[in-house]
Amino acid sequence: MPRLVTAFSNPLVKEVRALRDKKRRRETGLFIAEGLRILTEAREAGHVPVHLFYAAGTRHVLLDSLVAEVEAAGGDVVETVPDILHKLSGKDNPQTVLGVYRVFDTGLERIDRTAAPLWIVAQSLRDPGNLGTILRTGDAVGAGGLILVDECVDPFSVEAVRATMGALFTQKLATASWDAFRAWLRAGVGQLIGTSLKAELDYQAPRYEAPAFILVGNEAQGLPAAYEAECDLLVKMPMLGKADSLNAAVATAVMAYEVINQWRRGA
Amino acid sequence: MPRLVTAFSNPLVKEVRALRDKKRRRETGLFIAEGLRILTEAREAGHVPVHLFYAAGTRHVLLDSLVAEVEAAGGDVVETVPDILHKLSGKDNPQTVLGVYRVFDTGLERIDRTAAPLWIVAQSLRDPGNLGTILRTGDAVGAGGLILVDECVDPFSVEAVRATMGALFTQKLATASWDAFRAWLRAGVGQLIGTSLKAELDYQAPRYEAPAFILVGNEAQGLPAAYEAECDLLVKMPMLGKADSLNAAVATAVMAYEVINQWRRGA
Repeated sequence: MPRLVTAFSNPLVKEVRALRDKKRRRETGLFIAEGLRILTEAREAGHVPVHLFYAAGTRHVLLDSLVAEVEAAGGDVVETVPDILHKLSGKDNPQTVLGVYRVFDTGLERIDRTAAPLWIVAQSLRDPGNLGTILRTGDAVGAGGLILVDECVDPFSVEAVRATMGALFTQKLATASWDAFRAWLRAGVGQLIGTSLKAELDYQAPRYEAPAFILVGNEAQGLPAAYEAECDLLVKMPMLGKADSLNAAVATAVMAYEVINQWRRGA
Repeated sequence: MPRLVTAFSNPLVKEVRALRDKKRRRETGLFIAEGLRILTEAREAGHVPVHLFYAAGTRHVLLDSLVAEVEAAGGDVVETVPDILHKLSGKDNPQTVLGVYRVFDTGLERIDRTAAPLWIVAQSLRDPGNLGTILRTGDAVGAGGLILVDECVDPFSVEAVRATMGALFTQKLATASWDAFRAWLRAGVGQLIGTSLKAELDYQAPRYEAPAFILVGNEAQGLPAAYEAECDLLVKMPMLGKADSLNAAVATAVMAYEVINQWRRGA
């Protein structure tokens, strides 16, 4: 049976609210995901929350399934009020359902590169919205997952999880240093594709081959020169205006759709 | 000569800080843009700030040009300290330069559709980052500007301006009701292109014609049925994963690059 929690002073409320801090997420190995849609994606991908919060009075068949599954797994189901959900999520209009999950193992060794034709690799990504949007795009283009190289923003932050729209649970996720990633990449097949303002080659000119690894650089700096030099293909997108670059998540998507469009045509 | 302002209690500091609120922006007709890069884009597009703030000790030839231009225009140049810039921008690591600008006239009648082959139309867009990213993409693909239909997030919010990376000043911007937009659109040439989950037509199948108007829907709801029905072309992008949609700014960019790629090929 769900238990009722309505007090801001409740220790669990304080503990879950603290998960908005990266330090606390690292200490506990827990993170927050919000919304029935994302929690249902999680469930379908085999992730059951440790704690499940929902606003009293919420009625939905998907919520019933979630509650049953959490209870069957011995998890904690908490009925609460919108003010508490607001406090937990930090959002003005909080979702009526919120789950606390265990963070995943993000070792590179979990990645089977032959499981998908396309992978996305992000280097020193700083913005949680961009990271989440890139995971969401990865799901849409049939990528296997996202490999985070160097110091990236935490993919388990509330903002990043929100922007993934559930793809955090359906895409593989790995973190690695550049040297470790490079060693792993070169120990098998795969084409490393970077985009660069300095590139001469139009991004529609080469024929891309699976498994393709699309490498995205930091929002402000782009890719370091040594990383560009490691790419098997370094390409540029047409820039017809005054700007010299695209948002990192946008550039990733434009590149990824070119790759899968070629494959759809059988090129 | 620049004047020195270092007190948080300074009335101008309070007034500029208040511009982070939409209500205050509407009352004053002023907004904030940050960073030497964006302010230089603004200057090149003919926008001179009413107030120019910079951190004491900042040395840059582009800043010298800005200062000279603001002074020539009778504007207000203020030397200040990082703490004040932090207070004004709300950012932990504020830019060293910040400008206060007059909001533009955003009447639809300012738009000459023949001035560019491509235009972006956003409906009930809610996220300032998405709005800014769409403007930035518009610049990159050679669009003429962005038309905001129905109730969209304020394009002059600090977050939106930041995400445009200067494109706010280089792209045309108009706001209109759906009925006013539709009447304007149908009074001239132009192809209205919508993306929809319900569409049958692959987005690479039709031949797009200038001027093309790419219509983007609200992040959560997509386009209303009546708006989809108005489109000359309703297309879908391949979705190969569990997700059924892309981030709004990402979808806009993927669509826009398809259109300009066709034109680059002379299709």
